[in-house]
Amino acid sequence: MKLRTYIKPLIIVAFLTTGLTMQSQTQGKEATDMMFRISEIEIFPEHLDAYTAILKEEAAASVRLEPGVISIFPLYQKEDLNVFRILEIYASKEAYQAHLQTPHFKHYKESTLNMVKSLKLVDMNVLDDSVIELIFKKQKI
Amino acid sequence: MKLRTYIKPLIIVAFLTTGLTMQSQTQGKEATDMMFRISEIEIFPEHLDAYTAILKEEAAASVRLEPGVISIFPLYQKEDLNVFRILEIYASKEAYQAHLQTPHFKHYKESTLNMVKSLKLVDMNVLDDSVIELIFKKQKI
Repeated sequence: MKLRTYIKPLIIVAFLTTGLTMQSQTQGKEATDMMFRISEIEIFPEHLDAYTAILKEEAAASVRLEPGVISIFPLYQKEDLNVFRILEIYASKEAYQAHLQTPHFKHYKESTLNMVKSLKLVDMNVLDDSVIELIFKKQKI
Repeated sequence: MKLRTYIKPLIIVAFLTTGLTMQSQTQGKEATDMMFRISEIEIFPEHLDAYTAILKEEAAASVRLEPGVISIFPLYQKEDLNVFRILEIYASKEAYQAHLQTPHFKHYKESTLNMVKSLKLVDMNVLDDSVIELIFKKQKI
């Protein structure tokens, strides 16, 4: 599970540029439609390798095929490799509903059902803040 | 706490461009040095407004003043406004150690000590994955 050195910078750039690209594609939409979620997932240890492979496949297909999937960004705990957190950003509730109907999501859901020890889908808000304006301003300097 | 409509797209763009800019600034470093963390924080309800103000200030100062802070991205649960998750990305362990010594972090830490009901600093790895390569490839099309 160790990250290859040359891949790690790509992760950041790719994840972040994906967000940027998708954001520009969704500028016409109400920004308040956007959905932020952190999925909290624990996997039975004996299924970890199989689960990891299927999650990779599902995340890749979602990002590749669905404009409304702004990001699916999976992380796992250093202290417990069986515990995952996925930062999910969808352009809208409709985009999320469409995601649930895709063959790749259905395959992921069905094939990992017996691998999942616990699952919690936690809907989040972003802190609305002057911080954000400062971050944005910083980029213009 | 409701997000203003015009701010939300800025959040994504600003957060993500910050990551991009900082990534380009840190390309000379070992990528494996990077630190990913999700801080899990619960606040005593009576201190929520004060805590939110101080967190905003601290996140803004960190992003504005510290090149090694790639991102501090605070979210809070829709179902429980007292529960925060902060996605933190540092360029290196040294950048994180330097962050701990800044006046703005020390102020945040000291002034919120009695506001925090629980705190868990969870170090994470990014899933090393062909997904990432696909996402990256997507951006080049």
